[in-house]
Amino acid sequence: MIYHEEKVRVRYSETDKMGYVYYGNYASYLEVARVELIRSLGLSYKKMEDEGVMLPIAEYKNKYLRPAYYDDLLTIKTWIREKPGMKLRFDYEIENQEGMLLTVAETTLVFVSMETFKPMQPPQNFIEATQKYFEPARRERKN
Amino acid sequence: MIYHEEKVRVRYSETDKMGYVYYGNYASYLEVARVELIRSLGLSYKKMEDEGVMLPIAEYKNKYLRPAYYDDLLTIKTWIREKPGMKLRFDYEIENQEGMLLTVAETTLVFVSMETFKPMQPPQNFIEATQKYFEPARRERKN
Amino acid sequence: MIYHEEKVRVRYSETDKMGYVYYGNYASYLEVARVELIRSLGLSYKKMEDEGVMLPIAEYKNKYLRPAYYDDLLTIKTWIREKPGMKLRFDYEIENQEGMLLTVAETTLVFVSMETFKPMQPPQNFIEATQKYFEPARRERKN
Amino acid sequence: MIYHEEKVRVRYSETDKMGYVYYGNYASYLEVARVELIRSLGLSYKKMEDEGVMLPIAEYKNKYLRPAYYDDLLTIKTWIREKPGMKLRFDYEIENQEGMLLTVAETTLVFVSMETFKPMQPPQNFIEATQKYFEPARRERKN
Repeated sequence: MIYHEEKVRVRYSETDKMGYVYYGNYASYLEVARVELIRSLGLSYKKMEDEGVMLPIAEYKNKYLRPAYYDDLLTIKTWIREKPGMKLRFDYEIENQEGMLLTVAETTLVFVSMETFKPMQPPQNFIEATQKYFEPARRERKN
Repeated sequence: MIYHEEKVRVRYSETDKMGYVYYGNYASYLEVARVELIRSLGLSYKKMEDEGVMLPIAEYKNKYLRPAYYDDLLTIKTWIREKPGMKLRFDYEIENQEGMLLTVAETTLVFVSMETFKPMQPPQNFIEATQKYFEPARRERKN
Repeated sequence: MIYHEEKVRVRYSETDKMGYVYYGNYASYLEVARVELIRSLGLSYKKMEDEGVMLPIAEYKNKYLRPAYYDDLLTIKTWIREKPGMKLRFDYEIENQEGMLLTVAETTLVFVSMETFKPMQPPQNFIEATQKYFEPARRERKN
Repeated sequence: MIYHEEKVRVRYSETDKMGYVYYGNYASYLEVARVELIRSLGLSYKKMEDEGVMLPIAEYKNKYLRPAYYDDLLTIKTWIREKPGMKLRFDYEIENQEGMLLTVAETTLVFVSMETFKPMQPPQNFIEATQKYFEPARRERKN
């Protein structure tokens, strides 16, 4: 399992006339969380694209439990729970500054070659940076 | 069942560096489709809010099958398949100008009083404008 | 002079907690107006990019006189008043459905080769499609 | 004079198919810079709105000298050079992580009462928090 926490401050541009964060704008918060999780592994999503691999979204689900408001300082908790293959799934929980759970979301991304536009296995450096979080060997180490 | 079709042209602002429509921007296409479905019933979502009832999103799911590109003329097919109660569910399919299915989505909204901020039954004019789409089918089932 | 009118309906996603259209979102309305003006000339901005020429923005000014609100049906009046060279300037006025002037804006774009990333003269088909609007011969027609 | 520097990381959602930050998205970067400048004075724009005063934009200008790219870490330098009255002007320069100047912008905002929707002088706590940045210079000028 890989876990990362990221803080995002709600911008005025992200609110709507209801006074809430517009439901479509959570997508970019989750993007920030994903990208910073990847950076925390010593990798760079930008570099991955520069090297010919992109990660488009295949599926996105979001349950909006409570609204986020302007200027809220959100904490986005992000998990990769399954070993990355051609598909890479992220689970998220977003909390506000009072620790209230606002949304529960998940996204499934696919590693795609920018040459062939076909799904592919994760690039070698991604496999190397993430495998220790999923290897059975990790459990053994505890013994 | 209520069905509506709406066309939306992809704006440059909605694309990302992948050259695709950013996955978060489909939310506003679906909003346009919902709002125009409601208008096609002789109602107005704006007026509903002016009269103290809003429809925040409780849940959103989207499967991205194929990308939409800049300047694509999308057709958003929208269905309300279940009789509206406190919850109002919309199902969507988005096709491009070649008739290719790009995304399949659903949103669940909740009627909320802007006075009490609590869920409520649909306003009277909404019930009246929509009941004919659901009642005949119900009667037939009883035969 | 080239003139074009375009209608745009304000989306919920484009409003902010003030209940107004967020000031940054006018940029995409102006983009729609520009692109449709170009389409009205029998050209396509998308095709222009496919053929290796892009039109990034060099300068943008906007005076916000009155707010636009959710669901407003805006009319964007767009002018090209000067013969296009390497620079292409658009002037805009946005009115709401009551004919009230909301904003006055201008953008200056630059024809840029996607190969060299350097400014260039307009592509041949752009020159041909626009020159009649600026030719002195036009004045003669009035005689 | 009041000066503040703020860092903003370019999100994928903010890029367009040109690979640049979409010209409309700078508006929200400038908003972040303004709001954090205000916070650095010990004030809160959110609180100001809660207390009945808002700051809509009256005018916005932006010169785009060089593009910002995905994942760039931008520095937004913000100045209030004139003592705030009913109008409040901010000047901005945005640089990328290599110190290259990307855009030069300015916005003029107006203090507006949320009760009367009319322009007003800045609220008392805003005057108090900002006057020291402008008064010394004024006194010197008088000598």
